[in-house]
Amino acid sequence: MGLIVQKFGGSSVGDPDRIRHVAERVAAERRSGRDVVVVVSAMGHATDELIALAKTVTAEPRRRHPREFDMLLTAGERVSMALLAMAIRDLGLEAISLTGSQAAIITDETHTGARIAEIRATRVREELAKGCIVIVAGFQGVSRAKEVTTLGRGGSDTTAVALAAALGAERCDIYTDVDGVYTADPRRVPAARRVQRVDYQEMVELAASGAQVMHPRAVEIGGRYGVPIRVLSTFRPDGEPGGTLITRRQEAMEGLVLTGLASEAGYARLVLRGLPATTAAVSDVLTALADARVSVDLVVLADRPDERRQIQLTLPEDALPDALPICERLVAAMGEGEVGVRRGLSRVALVGSGMVGVPGVYAQAFEALVKEGIDVHAVSTSSISITFIVDSTKETRTLQVLHDAFGLGASEGEAAA
Amino acid sequence: MGLIVQKFGGSSVGDPDRIRHVAERVAAERRSGRDVVVVVSAMGHATDELIALAKTVTAEPRRRHPREFDMLLTAGERVSMALLAMAIRDLGLEAISLTGSQAAIITDETHTGARIAEIRATRVREELAKGCIVIVAGFQGVSRAKEVTTLGRGGSDTTAVALAAALGAERCDIYTDVDGVYTADPRRVPAARRVQRVDYQEMVELAASGAQVMHPRAVEIGGRYGVPIRVLSTFRPDGEPGGTLITRRQEAMEGLVLTGLASEAGYARLVLRGLPATTAAVSDVLTALADARVSVDLVVLADRPDERRQIQLTLPEDALPDALPICERLVAAMGEGEVGVRRGLSRVALVGSGMVGVPGVYAQAFEALVKEGIDVHAVSTSSISITFIVDSTKETRTLQVLHDAFGLGASEGEAAA
Repeated sequence: MGLIVQKFGGSSVGDPDRIRHVAERVAAERRSGRDVVVVVSAMGHATDELIALAKTVTAEPRRRHPREFDMLLTAGERVSMALLAMAIRDLGLEAISLTGSQAAIITDETHTGARIAEIRATRVREELAKGCIVIVAGFQGVSRAKEVTTLGRGGSDTTAVALAAALGAERCDIYTDVDGVYTADPRRVPAARRVQRVDYQEMVELAASGAQVMHPRAVEIGGRYGVPIRVLSTFRPDGEPGGTLITRRQEAMEGLVLTGLASEAGYARLVLRGLPATTAAVSDVLTALADARVSVDLVVLADRPDERRQIQLTLPEDALPDALPICERLVAAMGEGEVGVRRGLSRVALVGSGMVGVPGVYAQAFEALVKEGIDVHAVSTSSISITFIVDSTKETRTLQVLHDAFGLGASEGEAAA
Repeated sequence: MGLIVQKFGGSSVGDPDRIRHVAERVAAERRSGRDVVVVVSAMGHATDELIALAKTVTAEPRRRHPREFDMLLTAGERVSMALLAMAIRDLGLEAISLTGSQAAIITDETHTGARIAEIRATRVREELAKGCIVIVAGFQGVSRAKEVTTLGRGGSDTTAVALAAALGAERCDIYTDVDGVYTADPRRVPAARRVQRVDYQEMVELAASGAQVMHPRAVEIGGRYGVPIRVLSTFRPDGEPGGTLITRRQEAMEGLVLTGLASEAGYARLVLRGLPATTAAVSDVLTALADARVSVDLVVLADRPDERRQIQLTLPEDALPDALPICERLVAAMGEGEVGVRRGLSRVALVGSGMVGVPGVYAQAFEALVKEGIDVHAVSTSSISITFIVDSTKETRTLQVLHDAFGLGASEGEAAA
């Protein structure tokens, strides 16, 4: 029999009752004959509470004391994993919890946002061989210098999928509070339906575009190592089928297969006008922003008739205090330009395979949005997605309009063929 | 310049204000030119809260899941030490926190009550050499199999003194909420005074007899390695002299030097009557209790004229539910004996060097107690202490009477010469 990696997020282990419920679920999988590795996050809001505590002691703990910030946060998973191990042992099964260090989740040295370099799963394999259920702390690792690190956003998902890859697991089950991936957020688009199966790349696009269900980084690892990932609800009754399987597309691809929509508010747009029409000017702007750790989401260059250039940047609104002064300084240094700001924007992404070479999609999308009076401030595309920047006041309406326009509410296989 | 180890207990780092206060104290020591290693406990009641949390998930976590219990509890010091490191760095000094594992506090494998086997202080020395203040998690260690362990009661004091020994520190300062060792508890004996200096062995006796100021285990390590220990208050104004130095007696010892009194309630006495007058009978009783992890404090054997034997055991009252059925079973198996129980007892210990060969002490003590109508249920002695078992209702009065009788309120050097 094979090995399953199960990951439970903070809300799944948010209180003692839920921990016992998770223990039952883990035990059921183990009793089916498989080896089980469990990855857990900190309980409920424990991580947020630790961050709040640090902020009562010092200003900007993450930025100013990143090493100690990691030391602090890794306390969270110790608590949840030890309690889960106790609850599983109470059910008569052997279980052992391992820290990121004990499980040899080796990372680089970047505190608060480390990348996994390697997993030396010797200890995990030894414990599995003894018949133990192995519980591994999500989100945390250890550098080669034996420093405690954390993986940053999406850390626990990343731990789970990376472990599944390292151990050759038959599947990685991500337990969360929704029962899978939907064609759009069901709270906003009532016609939305659960997707049975989605391709890694599509899932990365959906996740990167605001679908909360899973972190894109973890999906990327799954895709690279071919680990099938199932997203499902911790609170779903036992035995009921459900969830979404993230895997490689099995069928040969012809034409357009739209998977779904995702969206995220909290964006702003900066327009830098009057720059020299040189690559160096663009490069200076992007380098200065990268140095300030401002991640720019979309860059649109527009050549103006007067031979000066315009750059439009879409970026998270909370990065404006860092980004705006940098841009103003650069624009001032390069000439008589100016910087325009628009806040309150959302990204809405339409994700699906085979968009390349299907020109009708753009036209169909714009036509539907224009008919509804929705202004699109910017568009970007990849081979499997189109992202529209709209006012946040229109975000839900944009989702609904696109969901309708592409027939995403129809059952799988019939959609927008 | 030398090296100082400072230890701060849970109440000293109980909230963000106190953590900043401790940071100031550490910084002051560092700025005086010395290297500083700081050992911290978990914040305030954090450890108790983690234990309570575990008890909502499982019954008897410490006994049934000792490994996971240790994993859970070690979360506590991670939080306090990371926050303290941040607060010290905010004062412009370099600081780094190290777990028991990173500081290489190597222990045996006994979860929830590990003993320190060795401290490989390489990493600590490296960080000190870089000019860092090194903060080490108290109470926790790591076994040679890389398992996380905790040291049990008095763990943080033990970490501090053991580190001071390993590093050849000039002194280990134990910061607590009292400003030193007193001749008796000042809340009960108004005439009590602070002792300037106390010998290791006397301190072990005082601590073992209920003086809360420090754990005897840590004092023993101090004595073995000759580490001077100073006990002082975290909340004492800066610059005010205070505290008690625990060290080797410098002067040659002649006659009796009484150091002080300590007491502890919560004891009970079992009297096993009608046992065979054999060593095996006594051994059976003590072995059965040891197997049940009941620690017996005082054993008094009394041979009866009818050639059957009586054993009196003094033990913590909360061990009665375990101990009583064992004793009743054994007594029943050995003959027609019976078990008598007396609850509500206290231990009062009179501690001082040179008691051997000073027969007047017994007489003086008993005379004073009898005059006050205080019944002594049992007495035990060591070379530097006499322990009286009295009713807890008489505990305070016993302290006062003995304090008076031996002139402990007089200034040092004049006492009971």
